[in-house]
Amino acid sequence: MQIELITIGDELLLGFTIDTNAAHIARQLAPLGVEIVRRATVGDDSSVIAAAVSEALARTGAVITTGGLGPTSDDVTRPAIAAVFGRELRLDDEILARITALFESRGYKGPIPPSNIVQAMVPEGAVVLVNRHGTAPGIWLEDDQRRWVAMLPGVPREMRGMLAEELVPRVAALVEGYPVVVRSRTLRSTGIAESAIADKLTTPAEAALARLSVAYLPGADGVDVRLTVRGLASSAADELLAGGAAAVRERLGSGIYGEEEDDLAAVVLELCRSRKWRISVAESCTGGLLGARLTAIPGSSDVVLGGVIAYADDIKASLLGVPPDLLREHGAVSEAVAAAMAAGARDRTGAEVALAITGIAGPGGGSEAKPVGTVWLAMSAGGKTSSLKRIFVGDRGEIRHRAVQFALDMLRRELAEP
Amino acid sequence: MQIELITIGDELLLGFTIDTNAAHIARQLAPLGVEIVRRATVGDDSSVIAAAVSEALARTGAVITTGGLGPTSDDVTRPAIAAVFGRELRLDDEILARITALFESRGYKGPIPPSNIVQAMVPEGAVVLVNRHGTAPGIWLEDDQRRWVAMLPGVPREMRGMLAEELVPRVAALVEGYPVVVRSRTLRSTGIAESAIADKLTTPAEAALARLSVAYLPGADGVDVRLTVRGLASSAADELLAGGAAAVRERLGSGIYGEEEDDLAAVVLELCRSRKWRISVAESCTGGLLGARLTAIPGSSDVVLGGVIAYADDIKASLLGVPPDLLREHGAVSEAVAAAMAAGARDRTGAEVALAITGIAGPGGGSEAKPVGTVWLAMSAGGKTSSLKRIFVGDRGEIRHRAVQFALDMLRRELAEP
Repeated sequence: MQIELITIGDELLLGFTIDTNAAHIARQLAPLGVEIVRRATVGDDSSVIAAAVSEALARTGAVITTGGLGPTSDDVTRPAIAAVFGRELRLDDEILARITALFESRGYKGPIPPSNIVQAMVPEGAVVLVNRHGTAPGIWLEDDQRRWVAMLPGVPREMRGMLAEELVPRVAALVEGYPVVVRSRTLRSTGIAESAIADKLTTPAEAALARLSVAYLPGADGVDVRLTVRGLASSAADELLAGGAAAVRERLGSGIYGEEEDDLAAVVLELCRSRKWRISVAESCTGGLLGARLTAIPGSSDVVLGGVIAYADDIKASLLGVPPDLLREHGAVSEAVAAAMAAGARDRTGAEVALAITGIAGPGGGSEAKPVGTVWLAMSAGGKTSSLKRIFVGDRGEIRHRAVQFALDMLRRELAEP
Repeated sequence: MQIELITIGDELLLGFTIDTNAAHIARQLAPLGVEIVRRATVGDDSSVIAAAVSEALARTGAVITTGGLGPTSDDVTRPAIAAVFGRELRLDDEILARITALFESRGYKGPIPPSNIVQAMVPEGAVVLVNRHGTAPGIWLEDDQRRWVAMLPGVPREMRGMLAEELVPRVAALVEGYPVVVRSRTLRSTGIAESAIADKLTTPAEAALARLSVAYLPGADGVDVRLTVRGLASSAADELLAGGAAAVRERLGSGIYGEEEDDLAAVVLELCRSRKWRISVAESCTGGLLGARLTAIPGSSDVVLGGVIAYADDIKASLLGVPPDLLREHGAVSEAVAAAMAAGARDRTGAEVALAITGIAGPGGGSEAKPVGTVWLAMSAGGKTSSLKRIFVGDRGEIRHRAVQFALDMLRRELAEP
């Protein structure tokens, strides 16, 4: 099945917002065999929205829009598309009741603002797509030739929720029995360079990968290897992907930490959980980012105890017990200090394992001996402390992200050993 | 001047690549008074590319494309657009020489691969846009009615270089003396709801905003208010924007913390710096995110000392000195514990101010009395500690982000007072 996507908003055209919704929608619909064949982005302008929707309906007959459903005057998607279908807008009591309830649940007193009441106006004959994550309802409009437009909100969290709960089931019903698919599978690696991965997978050529397309996707987490199959029935596609994934795992060994959207922090938490290990952290240049990454995972509280953000040297001494002599002698970015930070964090929190990070994230603070990107990482567990130095590339944000990823990977490799 | 943008590539439609080029191009061209009025994304398919380009030429007469100029068989932009203009492709000796030199400079021996020779084929009558960052040259094609298409590569680094070096000067020459511009100014607010902002700015109607378009852009940082002027000379546009911005500041008062890309963390650091205050943090549900946010700002080390990630209650007691009685009696998410965390962090780090966050980020852990999103925030400074409770909406990530933003805003408001 083919669908066109129209993303709406001045801020998208002006370049103030990067359109992440479009990619998300494509990825969520692909497993159903749905292909987004064309995408348009238009501003908050009724006549341009109407023109783009009319053209897409004439070409493809199936259109998803995002954006322009909010409560303010620049949100014109609903009336513009209602006009394309020749429908009037009417107040929907059920939506109004839901918006009222939402306001009340947030402790809002008094009458609903008129601008939010406008959100309860829907075109005649529309199906309402329930928004469990905000006030703007989605709308499904269909004409007598079964051409349809589904309108989703532009706020990513609301859009994602409504897509999963309301639109995917509806589209799935339309494509049921659709025989040919595009399917892919992604294996996530960290700690191996892109070119080394390519060499490992192609020298010698791997038969299991011959009928797949292989993409190498480097990022701050590491390199993802994506295998894609097109134009097969779904069981044959899955079989080919399973063989390819097994071959990649065989060749890259412990470099692979997960698949698809797996987060290394979640992988590490799960490994800790199975060993009943609890983690603490001691962070200098990452300033809390490792703790934030671990606690971003729901349910992390049975594993993560906490730790110390020791950005200033005084805090390394007072809250982690790093001897001031060590700091003076070796400097804060050194093997000795990293090890003392990890040991101190473990000692003072009672965790089974502590991770420490100290480095120079830049842009300032580098020297010839310790250039920007130099990071010492340490792990203290079971009475022993190990340290490693790495020089990470990138800007301040990337260096910090890579340092956190590397610290997590040190622990993963420790726990993955039998 | 109005331009349409067409981004080309199966990867973009499949959602494996997020289109950051489009936003970059819009932002680079805006200062010239260029408005991207419409954007389309199509796959690597000659007939679809040709159709999209033809439509855009008919509508707007000025088109930029990205992607599809590479050496592989799925790169079909050049022949597709040459056909739209009725031009043949011819081998360009100068480009071939440049590609050959590039291969040699990278240590490549032997004949240039045929696929790269294809990159030296350009449409008759085209102007070549030099690529100093890769092999694919860009192309400028114009017809006898002065309608034009500029083809740029899709690789962001190559595209950005070519845009700055080749295309911006060319477009600037076209719009030289072009009297009217699109210009905008964004004011950033936090702690006020979108509908409340809209009401404050429109009741009663604000004359200074009458000739501006006003967009409300809600996000986890708060609501940005963007004012845009179109179709005026640049001095008149700036004057109108200055009046509008002053009116917004007047009506929203201390709700405005900055403009454009200002980060509240950077604003807070600057305010602290001017008072010689140093910050420490005590984080439970945010697990280090507040520290990470503050230390993401380059040069934060003169203000940020560090602090304690007290995710587990034992750590709140041992590293922050929160009395276990308080934890038992009030629970970790309470006014008393938040205040004790802030006081403990300040006491143990010697900072002039400490911020504490303790709450229920979800998805689990909520109760009727303390639903998911309930967060107590505290600030300890100058011998006094203040606390506030908020119930934030969103998923775990948004609740944590909003809590951090709110904590920063407590400090901003404290410091902003005379």
